[in-house]
Amino acid sequence: MSEFDVLCIGNAIVDIIARAEDDFLHENNIIKGAMNLIDADRAELLYDRMGPAVETSGGSAGNTAAGLASFGGTAAFFGKVCDDHLGGIYRHDIRAQGVAFDTRPLTDTPPTARSMIFVTPDGERSMNTYLGACVELGPEDIEEDKVAASKVTFFEGYLWDPPRAKEAIRKAAEIAHANGRQMSMTLSDPFCVDRYRDEFLELMRSGTVDIVFANEDEAKSLYQTADFETALTAMRTDCKLAIVTRSEKGSVAMDASQTASVSAHAIDTLVDTTGAGDLYAAGFLYGYTNGFALEECARLGSLAAAVIIQQIGPRPQVSLRQAGIDAGLIRG
Amino acid sequence: MSEFDVLCIGNAIVDIIARAEDDFLHENNIIKGAMNLIDADRAELLYDRMGPAVETSGGSAGNTAAGLASFGGTAAFFGKVCDDHLGGIYRHDIRAQGVAFDTRPLTDTPPTARSMIFVTPDGERSMNTYLGACVELGPEDIEEDKVAASKVTFFEGYLWDPPRAKEAIRKAAEIAHANGRQMSMTLSDPFCVDRYRDEFLELMRSGTVDIVFANEDEAKSLYQTADFETALTAMRTDCKLAIVTRSEKGSVAMDASQTASVSAHAIDTLVDTTGAGDLYAAGFLYGYTNGFALEECARLGSLAAAVIIQQIGPRPQVSLRQAGIDAGLIRG
Repeated sequence: MSEFDVLCIGNAIVDIIARAEDDFLHENNIIKGAMNLIDADRAELLYDRMGPAVETSGGSAGNTAAGLASFGGTAAFFGKVCDDHLGGIYRHDIRAQGVAFDTRPLTDTPPTARSMIFVTPDGERSMNTYLGACVELGPEDIEEDKVAASKVTFFEGYLWDPPRAKEAIRKAAEIAHANGRQMSMTLSDPFCVDRYRDEFLELMRSGTVDIVFANEDEAKSLYQTADFETALTAMRTDCKLAIVTRSEKGSVAMDASQTASVSAHAIDTLVDTTGAGDLYAAGFLYGYTNGFALEECARLGSLAAAVIIQQIGPRPQVSLRQAGIDAGLIRG
Repeated sequence: MSEFDVLCIGNAIVDIIARAEDDFLHENNIIKGAMNLIDADRAELLYDRMGPAVETSGGSAGNTAAGLASFGGTAAFFGKVCDDHLGGIYRHDIRAQGVAFDTRPLTDTPPTARSMIFVTPDGERSMNTYLGACVELGPEDIEEDKVAASKVTFFEGYLWDPPRAKEAIRKAAEIAHANGRQMSMTLSDPFCVDRYRDEFLELMRSGTVDIVFANEDEAKSLYQTADFETALTAMRTDCKLAIVTRSEKGSVAMDASQTASVSAHAIDTLVDTTGAGDLYAAGFLYGYTNGFALEECARLGSLAAAVIIQQIGPRPQVSLRQAGIDAGLIRG
C-alpha cells in the first residue's frame, strides 16, 4: 500500500444547509454556533420548519480529508454511512475528491447521518446533527494497513458522541504508534469538550494523541479558564504540537521548541463559516506532512479556512492547491 | 381559493452540480450549454465520472416559481416527483419557499428526476437530465381550481420531452383562457426548439400561448434564421408579448404597441449560469402580474438573473424582494 499523508476518521454526515434569522434559532432552542445533537423525531420537525436548502457532503474529519486531497495531498477516510441515497452521495463526493474511502456501509438502519445547518446573516452556522449510521462505527472498521501507511491519523472529538468510535480510535492509535506514525485530533466544539473533558485530557497526557487542534473557545473550555494565555500554556505542556485558531485574530502553533503566530487570511465577504476549522486542519496537515515549516503550515490552514468561509458548505468548490499557488504558499 | 400571481408547470428535477473542465465535456460527448437528455444507465456512468457535487432543487419552471415567491409574489407549481428521497427534498424546498405544490407523487418507479450539471470555468452550465418520474405528468395532474385562480400559467418548452405533459398544458390553456387568464411559456433551449419547432409555433399562432420567453439562440432557432432582428420581428407577430434575453447584452420585451429594451444588470463575478433564464422569467412575471410597466418588468428580470448567476445553483439564496428594494425597483 502506498503512503497516505493523512487518514481522517469521523462521523460521515450529509449537510443540509439553509439560511435562517437569529429569531429562528431562539424559537427552536438551537444553540447558536454549536453542534446540537438531535434524534430522528426532532430531525423531522426541524426539516419541516427549515427553509429551502442545499445538500452537500460534510462531517468534520471528512471535510478535512476532502481539503487535504484538494491541496494535492493523499488522504484516506474511515466513517460509517448506510447504503441509502444520502450514503451514496457521501461515498461519491469523498471518492470523487480523490480520498480513499472503503468503510463498509450499513445495509439496513439507521440511515446515513445528516446535519441541518442554519446559517444566520452574520455567516455563523448552527448545526443540528442526527448521527444515524455513525453510531455503528467501531474497532472492526479500522483498516490496519491504512493506519500503518498514514503519516498522521486525524480524528474529531465528536467521535466521543457515538458509543463505540472511541474504541476504534484507541485501536488506531496503537497501530499508528507501533508504526512510528502520529495521531492528531480536533477538540471539535466547546460543548463537546465539556462533555468529554477528562477523556480528552487523558488522550493528550497519555500521548495517545500527539497533535491537537482547538479554537479559542475549545481551548478555554478544556482547561475551564477564561484566560487565553493560561489555556495556551497548558495545551503546550499537554501535547507535542498544539494549534489554536482564533477566527479573524489568526492562529498560533506551538511545539516544545517554537511558537508560530500568523494572522488570518484576508477575505472579501463572509458567507458561511461551515467547515472553517476543518479546512484549517486540512491546510495545516497538508503542510505538516509535506515538510513545511510550522509557520507555513499555519498559513496554509488560514488560507483554506478563508476559502471555505466565502462559499456555502464545507467542501471546497475550488482547487485549494491552485489557491495555495496563487497565494505564493505552494510552488506550482 | 385565493389568487396566484403565477402557476408554473414543469419537470420537477433535483440538480447535482459540480465543476468540470471543458475537456471533460468533450470526452463525455456532452453538448456545452445545452440540456442533454440521458437515460438511467448514462446517468449512473456520468455520476461515476463526476467530481464532488452539491445537490439542490432545480427544474426550469420550478426555479421560476421559487423566484416568484422570493420576490414576494404568490406562486403555485405542478410537477411530478416520486415518493423517494430526492422527491422529499424537492417537495420540501419548493414548499419551504412558499410555493403551493400538491401534485400527487409516484409511489413506485421511475425515481425522481435529476440533472447532473457541469459548470465550466467560464460559468457556463451543461445539463444532463434523466427525466425519471417526470414522464408520468399528464392531464390528470392539472388542478383546475389553481389554473383558474392564477393570473398567468407559465410552462417550460422542455415539457414536450415527456410523452403526456403536452396534453396537460393544452388542458391548462383551455381552463386559463375560459377564466380570462393568460398562458406563458419559455422556449427552454435551442435544441428543444429544434425538436418541437412546429408545435411551438402552433402554440403561439393559435393563441394557446400569450406570452413567450426566449433567449437569442432559441429565437433564432425557432425561425431558423441567423439574423436576430428577423427573429424579433417574427416573434412580435406570432405572440401577444415576446421577451428575448441576450445575456450580457440585456433583454427586450415587445407587445403590439411598445418595445422595452433594457441593459443587463451589472455583476461582480460570474459563478454559474444555471437558472439565469428561469429567474429572468420570475422577475419579469412578478412585475407583470403586479402592475409594473414593461420596462420595469424587464429590469426585475435582469436583476433576478444577475443574482442567480453569482451563486451556485438555480434557487435564490437571498431574498429577491430585498434585492429589488435595494436596487430601487420595488418599494420597501
